[in-house]
Amino acid sequence: MITVLCGGVGAARFLAGLVQVVPPGDITAVVNTGDDTVLHGLAISPDLDTVTYTLAGAIDPERGWGLGGETWAAMGALERYLAVRPDGSSAGGTWFSLGDRDLATHLYRTHRLGEGAPLSAVTAEITRAWGLDLRLLPMTDDPVRTMVDVAGEGEIGFQEYFVGRRHAVAIAGVRFGGIDDARPGPGVLDAIAGADVVVVAPSNPVVSIGPLLAVPGVRDALVNRRDQVVAVSPIIGGKALKGPADRMLGELGVPVSAAGVARWYRDVAGTLVIDTEDAALRDDVEAQGVHGIVTDTIMSTPERAATLARVVIGS
Amino acid sequence: MITVLCGGVGAARFLAGLVQVVPPGDITAVVNTGDDTVLHGLAISPDLDTVTYTLAGAIDPERGWGLGGETWAAMGALERYLAVRPDGSSAGGTWFSLGDRDLATHLYRTHRLGEGAPLSAVTAEITRAWGLDLRLLPMTDDPVRTMVDVAGEGEIGFQEYFVGRRHAVAIAGVRFGGIDDARPGPGVLDAIAGADVVVVAPSNPVVSIGPLLAVPGVRDALVNRRDQVVAVSPIIGGKALKGPADRMLGELGVPVSAAGVARWYRDVAGTLVIDTEDAALRDDVEAQGVHGIVTDTIMSTPERAATLARVVIGS
Repeated sequence: MITVLCGGVGAARFLAGLVQVVPPGDITAVVNTGDDTVLHGLAISPDLDTVTYTLAGAIDPERGWGLGGETWAAMGALERYLAVRPDGSSAGGTWFSLGDRDLATHLYRTHRLGEGAPLSAVTAEITRAWGLDLRLLPMTDDPVRTMVDVAGEGEIGFQEYFVGRRHAVAIAGVRFGGIDDARPGPGVLDAIAGADVVVVAPSNPVVSIGPLLAVPGVRDALVNRRDQVVAVSPIIGGKALKGPADRMLGELGVPVSAAGVARWYRDVAGTLVIDTEDAALRDDVEAQGVHGIVTDTIMSTPERAATLARVVIGS
Repeated sequence: MITVLCGGVGAARFLAGLVQVVPPGDITAVVNTGDDTVLHGLAISPDLDTVTYTLAGAIDPERGWGLGGETWAAMGALERYLAVRPDGSSAGGTWFSLGDRDLATHLYRTHRLGEGAPLSAVTAEITRAWGLDLRLLPMTDDPVRTMVDVAGEGEIGFQEYFVGRRHAVAIAGVRFGGIDDARPGPGVLDAIAGADVVVVAPSNPVVSIGPLLAVPGVRDALVNRRDQVVAVSPIIGGKALKGPADRMLGELGVPVSAAGVARWYRDVAGTLVIDTEDAALRDDVEAQGVHGIVTDTIMSTPERAATLARVVIGS
């Protein structure tokens, strides 16, 4: 049994490799929900959807999020109404684009949550609808909202930082709103306790894996399994392949390197997989008390992702 | 000032004629909300939308409802999820098709209602977004749900009768759920009391105008203005031009004729406009104590609708 702690794109690519290596039924993905938001009254779970759409082969390969072959008629039509909102705000506007087919996912999730179903149950329904055999667990059924403290400005919601500002502003910190009251989702702690290997996917350590580690009980569960926990560094050659993980780590005073990632994860992960480009940093990783494994980690094709998965679970 | 009591398609066509004859700012349309429903968590107001889209020139002319040039991607994608609903129901299924651009209207309305805005305020925002100058008032801000008693089967919601069953089943009665607690919407009673002419549009007398008359206070307000109330018969030559008004009247024991419509409205309308095809029924109308006016009432073109409107408000 393999349990993977997941953010969005990087984790989805890793899982797409992993399902080629082990039976999907043996995989549990525990997914960040700190990015979740409500837009236009719809419950949006970006990381859950990115993982689902990717594993279903339905993701838009260019954007890396949303569905391929998408149309945008509803969102275009919504602009007419946002322009007349009486509070003068556009309530989030249309900077967060929801495609027409993607809307169906948000409509279904919102409707089911409104009926009282927990996010974990709705997520199981959605993955079943897409024919996925792996288990996808939200990190919690309780609302957690990642807030980004923008340097010199104050707190904004994660999606406003990530999409609205294109993560082009410096941060002073992050906070996971609601985290103190969040309980691990059904099956999350068992999935960590019972796994042969727990993988920390190459996701953003601060805002993708960070919320997961902050759910009360999760960090302790990982500490108990530290020898079986393998993290994959999302930092290669001092840079994030995608997204602001590099700048975020730097702005929080963490070395932007595989060694910095090792420091970030050393309490919970006994092993860190780093890229061949960073082979020279292996000693620095080990100096953090973390076993370092060097391999190709750039998942440019599903085959490379499978090769990486094989190394990670064999480690 | 002209106030028009409205259902959907017939009323929308009449209004499209009326706005050519009097300044739109002098028109108040009071619209049935008994057809309103919630599907997939979205607040749907079919008659309000039909009137809005028609007056905005955006209605689909073939279907008579929804937006022209519509696409259906979201609804198609939703089917995947409805198939896995844990209760085995499809929660209304997809028999009620929501186009992608139409969805924006329902999303906006649902979101605003969820924020606590009354339907009347949201309706004003939506009509403003479409650039309409006439005033569109829901008959009430309170939930009213028209229920149809299907002969030998029991009650079903109006949309299930109308769309799901294509109104092809005999009815034993109708009931307006919630009507006893419904208050007239803001401005509704004043619009009736202050109008130079109150028009009862050629809508279904049972399920379009019926709920309006049943909102506590509305019937009395009309009785007080009976001499200024002009109804337009939706029954021509013993048939409804569109929809089940003819069968519904017959199934409820009302003569399916202009004279039957006169009987239906005689307490509230001093005048009934009937089609030239029914000229011979004028005496039967007058026998109901209702002044009968004979003219062409088939609104096959906007010009004919304008001609009819001129007769109605001049009567």
